[in-house]
Amino acid sequence: MARIICQQLAPQIADLAGNCRLSIEAIRAAVQGKADVVVLPELVTSGYVFESREEAVSVAIPASHRLFVEWALEAARGPSVVVGGFCELGQDGLLYNSAAIVDGSGVRAVYRKTHLWEREKLIFQPGAEAPPVLDTQVGRIGVLVCYDLEFPEMTRTLALRGADLIAVPTNWPLVARPADERPPEVIIAMAAARTSRVFIACCDRVGVERGQEWTAGTAIIDQSGWVIATTPEAGPATADVDLVLARRKGWSELNDVLGDRRPELYSALSAEQSVSTQLPLTVSDQTRC
Amino acid sequence: MARIICQQLAPQIADLAGNCRLSIEAIRAAVQGKADVVVLPELVTSGYVFESREEAVSVAIPASHRLFVEWALEAARGPSVVVGGFCELGQDGLLYNSAAIVDGSGVRAVYRKTHLWEREKLIFQPGAEAPPVLDTQVGRIGVLVCYDLEFPEMTRTLALRGADLIAVPTNWPLVARPADERPPEVIIAMAAARTSRVFIACCDRVGVERGQEWTAGTAIIDQSGWVIATTPEAGPATADVDLVLARRKGWSELNDVLGDRRPELYSALSAEQSVSTQLPLTVSDQTRC
Repeated sequence: MARIICQQLAPQIADLAGNCRLSIEAIRAAVQGKADVVVLPELVTSGYVFESREEAVSVAIPASHRLFVEWALEAARGPSVVVGGFCELGQDGLLYNSAAIVDGSGVRAVYRKTHLWEREKLIFQPGAEAPPVLDTQVGRIGVLVCYDLEFPEMTRTLALRGADLIAVPTNWPLVARPADERPPEVIIAMAAARTSRVFIACCDRVGVERGQEWTAGTAIIDQSGWVIATTPEAGPATADVDLVLARRKGWSELNDVLGDRRPELYSALSAEQSVSTQLPLTVSDQTRC
Repeated sequence: MARIICQQLAPQIADLAGNCRLSIEAIRAAVQGKADVVVLPELVTSGYVFESREEAVSVAIPASHRLFVEWALEAARGPSVVVGGFCELGQDGLLYNSAAIVDGSGVRAVYRKTHLWEREKLIFQPGAEAPPVLDTQVGRIGVLVCYDLEFPEMTRTLALRGADLIAVPTNWPLVARPADERPPEVIIAMAAARTSRVFIACCDRVGVERGQEWTAGTAIIDQSGWVIATTPEAGPATADVDLVLARRKGWSELNDVLGDRRPELYSALSAEQSVSTQLPLTVSDQTRC
């Protein structure tokens, strides 16, 4: 069994030093709690609601920053694997909304969010590379950041590449939803988990930042698509899971959620041209006889 | 506005004449109820739990069958569009799990289910063609059948091809689910609707057939992914929707759920070779230090 702990936090906007301490303490607590995998929110080092690109630059750090040595030192005590978001200053001088995957050996990979949400487009450069799928001591871990999750192509691709668990640092702005419904992002994650029989761990934020309320929607989801851990408050959501179950892609001997695919019918998904922008906004005459 | 009515029915296994009457009466009632779109269950003409392929052959009908003239006559009274499943005898002598799309002019298209579930593989031939997206008087309607819906590639492809509404005749076997959760197939449909901002209407069955209990999970889902109509019993689930909303793919001016895609990252989805079958079933050493 592997223990997954999502540390739902409340970083402070543009407080790099404080957020670094917060992240290190959160990893330490999770490792003490025997986490094999620790997931932190998106942009945990910087906060999210920047007033300007300049403000983001002021707290951006490279992947070589000392912080990740600290994360690795904490991870080594497990040993654990840590996945957390940060505001990255690239060697190219551009900003990326990134996630670091760190274990006791150091930074294993950095993933730069490829699908930017809303005003992120005014601040960050979209990543050019597909997300990593890393072999770790507990299984294969794929990584997405927030809005990436809402592209079923992304979760599916990670499953096809062998991910047992998809770790998703997020900052979900609170949106309206009907009573008794889960946050829509969680529903999307549940569907992705079930359709590809893969575990998904989304680590969200709590609180309010410059008027933006967060969903506090942290959710760990099993390979059948059911939510097995959440928390409404700051702190950990914990689940013990058997990641090997993600390698059984059939509900029975006569089906296989990946093997039953019909790739020859899916070529439109990777076609360069977007169809949607060519569509007219009107429909045909709707009047009834 | 367009009125969608899903007629959740209980066809009898291998009773072609009775099921034909049932389907015609259901369409008539929906058209009298001012449906613009009527959706019927999968295999409504034949039932589902066949004892043998021979039994399925005994109730299979070609797309040229008189039944669809009856459906068209009922549809013409609206005018309405009807999408319903049937057990098709192809001109090639093979059986297909198909859906007919019928309006007042007759059969507009026949879609042969491309992803066969479980023992269907022992009875039916999988369809070779992608599903249709048809221009109708109320908007563009795409069609899937049951298990097709659980391939996010399919719903996404239909949205990219311009579907405003995806009609899904289904027979959902009842599966275990946690208390207070929706049927997993509905969760998958909700996620598909929201991630592509498209309406989805799933028409399921009720009752028990040869020991197989059905979910009675009929659900009409709006373009934000929320369920707007269900029914626990035999009969109609009705929703009035503005299908034009499916052509607004952005939540705001700075995003577009289709335009924000990164097709260059999705090539694995249409690659011929399935990766999953190559994966080992073990993970690395899981013991902790």
